Amino acid sequence: MNNNHVNADAVESWLRGLQDRICQGLAAADAEKAFASDRWQKPPDAKLRGEGDTRILEGGGLFERAGVAFSKVQGDALPPSATAARPELSGRGFCAVGVSLVLHPRNPYVPTTHLNVRFLTAEKPGAAPVWWFGGGYDLTPYYGFVEDAQHWHRTARDAVSEAIYPQLKQSCDDYFFLAHRDEARGIGGIFFDDWNQGGFAESFGLIQAVGDSFLPAYLPIVERRRNTAYGERQRNWQLMRRGRYVEFNLVWDRGTHFGLQSGGRSQSILMSMPPQVSWRYDDAPPPGTPEAELLQEFLKPRQWI
Amino acid sequence: MNNNHVNADAVESWLRGLQDRICQGLAAADAEKAFASDRWQKPPDAKLRGEGDTRILEGGGLFERAGVAFSKVQGDALPPSATAARPELSGRGFCAVGVSLVLHPRNPYVPTTHLNVRFLTAEKPGAAPVWWFGGGYDLTPYYGFVEDAQHWHRTARDAVSEAIYPQLKQSCDDYFFLAHRDEARGIGGIFFDDWNQGGFAESFGLIQAVGDSFLPAYLPIVERRRNTAYGERQRNWQLMRRGRYVEFNLVWDRGTHFGLQSGGRSQSILMSMPPQVSWRYDDAPPPGTPEAELLQEFLKPRQWI
Repeated sequence: MNNNHVNADAVESWLRGLQDRICQGLAAADAEKAFASDRWQKPPDAKLRGEGDTRILEGGGLFERAGVAFSKVQGDALPPSATAARPELSGRGFCAVGVSLVLHPRNPYVPTTHLNVRFLTAEKPGAAPVWWFGGGYDLTPYYGFVEDAQHWHRTARDAVSEAIYPQLKQSCDDYFFLAHRDEARGIGGIFFDDWNQGGFAESFGLIQAVGDSFLPAYLPIVERRRNTAYGERQRNWQLMRRGRYVEFNLVWDRGTHFGLQSGGRSQSILMSMPPQVSWRYDDAPPPGTPEAELLQEFLKPRQWI
Repeated sequence: MNNNHVNADAVESWLRGLQDRICQGLAAADAEKAFASDRWQKPPDAKLRGEGDTRILEGGGLFERAGVAFSKVQGDALPPSATAARPELSGRGFCAVGVSLVLHPRNPYVPTTHLNVRFLTAEKPGAAPVWWFGGGYDLTPYYGFVEDAQHWHRTARDAVSEAIYPQLKQSCDDYFFLAHRDEARGIGGIFFDDWNQGGFAESFGLIQAVGDSFLPAYLPIVERRRNTAYGERQRNWQLMRRGRYVEFNLVWDRGTHFGLQSGGRSQSILMSMPPQVSWRYDDAPPPGTPEAELLQEFLKPRQWI
């Protein structure tokens, strides 16, 4: 079928446009700062070759740190993080093109969020190329609001269809989990990897649906919470919970390991790190507080719709 | 030989005493705060059984956060982080007893430091038990001073002997290295693992020399730097460099992975995390500054004596 012809250029072009559209939407919401664009290129003899455009907004009104990165990289061998579940691909050369974003708002009532959409091809001489999509988005609130969680999940479900939402929601809950803390990273969302269901055109349609529904999923929550007054208590809680975000990304996240293992650009990969973070011993909140409610009611996987 | 009879009780008893002596020395230096002791015990049906005494000093005058932990744990199978280099031990039950400390001073002119001394035994039915020691200490300054680096390394060399210092110094440089940043974590020190050289008594003597020389290696540097005036620039640099400390511990440190993989106590393992940390994009210091000098002159492995 013609619409199942793999068209990597179309994916790249759509991803570059997505980065533009999302940055415009976020900068408009921030109002105080714009994104700075850092275009980079790896030298041709690097372990990982390729190029990227890392866009960063630091010290904004809404966002303390926001990063939206496009990259397109080629390597001679898929790293272990990519082949652990698919050993048959071990040693294949690969090309990965994608957009990643992590947003760290200033106000603790506005949740942190993450999106990634990516397209990979893996080749070796004498074998048919293999391709797949991956991606999703998830939300990490510091204070829980049922209506926000419902809006987030409904928008995701409507974007990807009722048929596949349950599977993608489950994958998200499974993936964004800190086993060493026995805590979910947040209230989840949707997540998929190794996706080629229905062929190229249909799979490409899925990441388009994910990418295009991100701002409608996130911005209404931002608008609802951004003017909520907060003090030192809420700020300290946010800084401490951001430590969990760091722990997840550095200890568990396959995307981070993929980047660091494959010789990726550390500065771009670690744009996901929060701008300020704290750790303290014995950080459990007192029972009956909104902070304890977050842990008990929101950071345990559940059905939001 | 009688002095090569393995005596695990003697090691445990010496380690508990070491924790006491180090905490006393550090609390005396801090002067404003004392250590709080958190004695814990894992339930008998836990994946990892055992007990510990985690001592934390937070918000002190000298130390923003200091943790000195004793633990003694038993597990049914050595985790992958412990057997990657010794596959023949895979699947063995183990007992690990040790003292770990990480000190995060408030003043950016006082370096962060880490010590670990440990004793492991690994057993399986029908095979002779295997035992080994591991440990060392390393120093992570935010501003470099040659006399401090020399004092640190001389004290270490005098403690472990000129004969083995070069090997232990090299191991430390190799181990405490952030490959993804191409930066050393600090100015190194001494490090060893899988150590049973000369038999039990001699190997036990090595960790005693390491443990007993820690305060004489560290405190003179503290006294020299603790009253140096600093401002926002130095504080921001310290917070950003602490991010590298987090990256090392969560991405590369086998001890952290050992603990998290084997079902250890997250709160105690992650006492190594700094109290406050920051990340920002494009964090390279301007050339010619003391911050740039740290990177160029101190965070490249070199001979200090």
